[in-house]
Amino acid sequence: MINFDDLYSVLTAVVPLYVTMFLAYASVKWNIFSPQQCGGINRFVAIFAVPLLSFEFISRINPYKMNLKFIAADGVSKVLTLIVLFLWTNLSKNGSLDWAITMFSLSTLPNTLVMGIPLLKSMYGDDKESIMVQAVVLQCIIWYTLLLFLFEYREAKNLILTSGGGNNISNNNSSSISNSNSQRNDESFWEVQERVERTTRNEDDIVNVIQSLNRVAPAIATAVDDDKRELHLFIWRCRCCSSPGVCEQSVEVCNRENEKAESVEEPNIIESQGSPSMLKKLLKMVCFKLVKNPNSYASILGLSWALASCRWGIKKPQILENSVTILSDAGLGMAMFSLGLFMASQPKLIACGNRLAAYGMVARFVAGPAVMAVASIGVGLRGTILQVSIVQASLPQGIVPFVFAREYNLHPDVLSTAVIFGMIISLPITMLYYILLGL
Amino acid sequence: MINFDDLYSVLTAVVPLYVTMFLAYASVKWNIFSPQQCGGINRFVAIFAVPLLSFEFISRINPYKMNLKFIAADGVSKVLTLIVLFLWTNLSKNGSLDWAITMFSLSTLPNTLVMGIPLLKSMYGDDKESIMVQAVVLQCIIWYTLLLFLFEYREAKNLILTSGGGNNISNNNSSSISNSNSQRNDESFWEVQERVERTTRNEDDIVNVIQSLNRVAPAIATAVDDDKRELHLFIWRCRCCSSPGVCEQSVEVCNRENEKAESVEEPNIIESQGSPSMLKKLLKMVCFKLVKNPNSYASILGLSWALASCRWGIKKPQILENSVTILSDAGLGMAMFSLGLFMASQPKLIACGNRLAAYGMVARFVAGPAVMAVASIGVGLRGTILQVSIVQASLPQGIVPFVFAREYNLHPDVLSTAVIFGMIISLPITMLYYILLGL
Repeated sequence: MINFDDLYSVLTAVVPLYVTMFLAYASVKWNIFSPQQCGGINRFVAIFAVPLLSFEFISRINPYKMNLKFIAADGVSKVLTLIVLFLWTNLSKNGSLDWAITMFSLSTLPNTLVMGIPLLKSMYGDDKESIMVQAVVLQCIIWYTLLLFLFEYREAKNLILTSGGGNNISNNNSSSISNSNSQRNDESFWEVQERVERTTRNEDDIVNVIQSLNRVAPAIATAVDDDKRELHLFIWRCRCCSSPGVCEQSVEVCNRENEKAESVEEPNIIESQGSPSMLKKLLKMVCFKLVKNPNSYASILGLSWALASCRWGIKKPQILENSVTILSDAGLGMAMFSLGLFMASQPKLIACGNRLAAYGMVARFVAGPAVMAVASIGVGLRGTILQVSIVQASLPQGIVPFVFAREYNLHPDVLSTAVIFGMIISLPITMLYYILLGL
Repeated sequence: MINFDDLYSVLTAVVPLYVTMFLAYASVKWNIFSPQQCGGINRFVAIFAVPLLSFEFISRINPYKMNLKFIAADGVSKVLTLIVLFLWTNLSKNGSLDWAITMFSLSTLPNTLVMGIPLLKSMYGDDKESIMVQAVVLQCIIWYTLLLFLFEYREAKNLILTSGGGNNISNNNSSSISNSNSQRNDESFWEVQERVERTTRNEDDIVNVIQSLNRVAPAIATAVDDDKRELHLFIWRCRCCSSPGVCEQSVEVCNRENEKAESVEEPNIIESQGSPSMLKKLLKMVCFKLVKNPNSYASILGLSWALASCRWGIKKPQILENSVTILSDAGLGMAMFSLGLFMASQPKLIACGNRLAAYGMVARFVAGPAVMAVASIGVGLRGTILQVSIVQASLPQGIVPFVFAREYNLHPDVLSTAVIFGMIISLPITMLYYILLGL
């Protein structure tokens, strides 16, 4: 049974996170920070604070003593979800790859680092911290890579559909075009129009093209607008400042990177779907994205250090340790602060409408924990670890999947709602799971 | 005797501070942050991180068990310095109030919070932390107030000199005009010219006026230029973003505040120097500045809490404690990061020329510790506390005096050099003091 003291100790860990978030929210509403200044704080969090925080946690684990059953349960739950979503995409009439990717993000990728570690540590004691860190490692190294791969696959598929001639262009592809193109906000409407025109080779498709244009135009307008409103959170790409002329240097870097990205992307268009050469290019693209992500370095360096230090019994020199902790200490508070800035920058907390928000919340807080429970019991987890594994699946939405969704313009409003609204309602829900499982 | 282990433990505390500073310096040089983004980070540090860090330290002391001898030594050393500077100003031919204020900042106000606490804790043990915190409290509550008072007094004096009619206009006043006016960067050159013209009533002064104009013009140009280059560090005023049109809202607030400030200031012009009514107005002005400074609130709230908690034996509820530490943990690293951003934004590390820099370093690292040593021995400090009191006087220049100097445009280049160049050379110097005193 969980008593009042247990609950209070959880609240002492979680309430400060919300206080920090609210402080940031209030300071944007009171005009203490301009959007550009928020961008600076977010960028600091994305480039220094959060990667150093990940490194600090990951480098402290013992990779030779991972909880294999927990890892198995985590893997099984995600693979189960993927199978169900794959079947739904291919067999159901309503199935779509787009929604499959979004549902995967929503139901399997919680905020393990910033919310998970302090929360579960306060619930189940310091020794369970390592379980959460293992979840962080797996998420960073395996699941985010897979998610990126899915996004790139979808991108490539859409490009093939739009460039593969009349037969492939179905009613679906107009929205695909709008999705795949509007992500590049710097690409003007006319370039998109040209690209759409280039892809159509016979007159039968003119209707489709007109439909496409009708959908592309508002999509781009929205995207550009979004880009002005939204602050960039945990983003390692250089889109951090969006008003034209505000930070030219960053924008220049950004443009250069976009050019590079496009030069890598372009050949995909002429490849056929599913060929080994296309797979290679997709992987190359995924690597390209991962190389730009400081969290990748943090995970890999952290894991390498953990492997080496446990193998040969070396310890970090105190100077190095202190040099990391001086900024990683800032990570937790600054990440929550950054989340608050993001919330304040959104025109509404529920951006995607109430119905989609409700579906998202069900995926996050019901389906996710349920699949995890099935998988955990399946692989033989029992006792406290079973509870940890279910409660961690009921944490609010992770930030990185939202950043990807934004970058690929695939239901960013749904993910943004899951992050923001999820944060607000997650406290009672996670507590409920904690109490129910403790009975 | 100090052995290698002692030295190493000091290095483990100090090197991370420099690593963080260098990281910030490098990230500006590599265009990771635009000036506006740096402004956001600095503003976060000034408004949240450092005040919360001060509050956290101050609220933990026991005000009923302050080290009275150390406080006395601190007070005596500062009063001694003030008396010497006062005599120099009034009796010496070279004496000037302007340099007296700058010398007071340089020789008596070190960086106790960010550099002092970690450094002296690592040198003399955790129990000496409270000595440093006492120095922080006194600095924030007494000495910064006095410094502000001196700046306001000088400002008022200059205004009286410039508006007090022909007889008062000496050869000195041309530089006074340039100093007192060019601080308000928003005030255009023509307004200044008009003001200078208003102050001259007979033809004898035309030569002076021309001299004034010649000096005022470059001073304003420099000030405006500085404002574009310099990032704002530990600043609670709203000048945090300086490019026009970048953050209109902040600028608006700023203008409103300037108006208010000027409406308070204006009547000073017609008052005679030293009258009780002028004193009252000066105090009002100082209060007005303090009210806008989050560090004032942090000190007063921290001290109030410390007084209450030690008197009635109350402890901070854990939720409140954690809500403060989640952001104050970020304070140390972020403050050093902010310092690195500031360094990178300066066109050169030694802004004031080598000769002035050398004088500044002598004031900071020789005169300051020497006066402190005399005062400490005078009030009867012996042993470790004597060492602590001398070593803390040899810390690099505090940031707040630089911010004031910038705000009142009184030798900001000298103070900026003391902060930046002082940080670079302070490590060997402070270590030298530590080793010599430990012999």
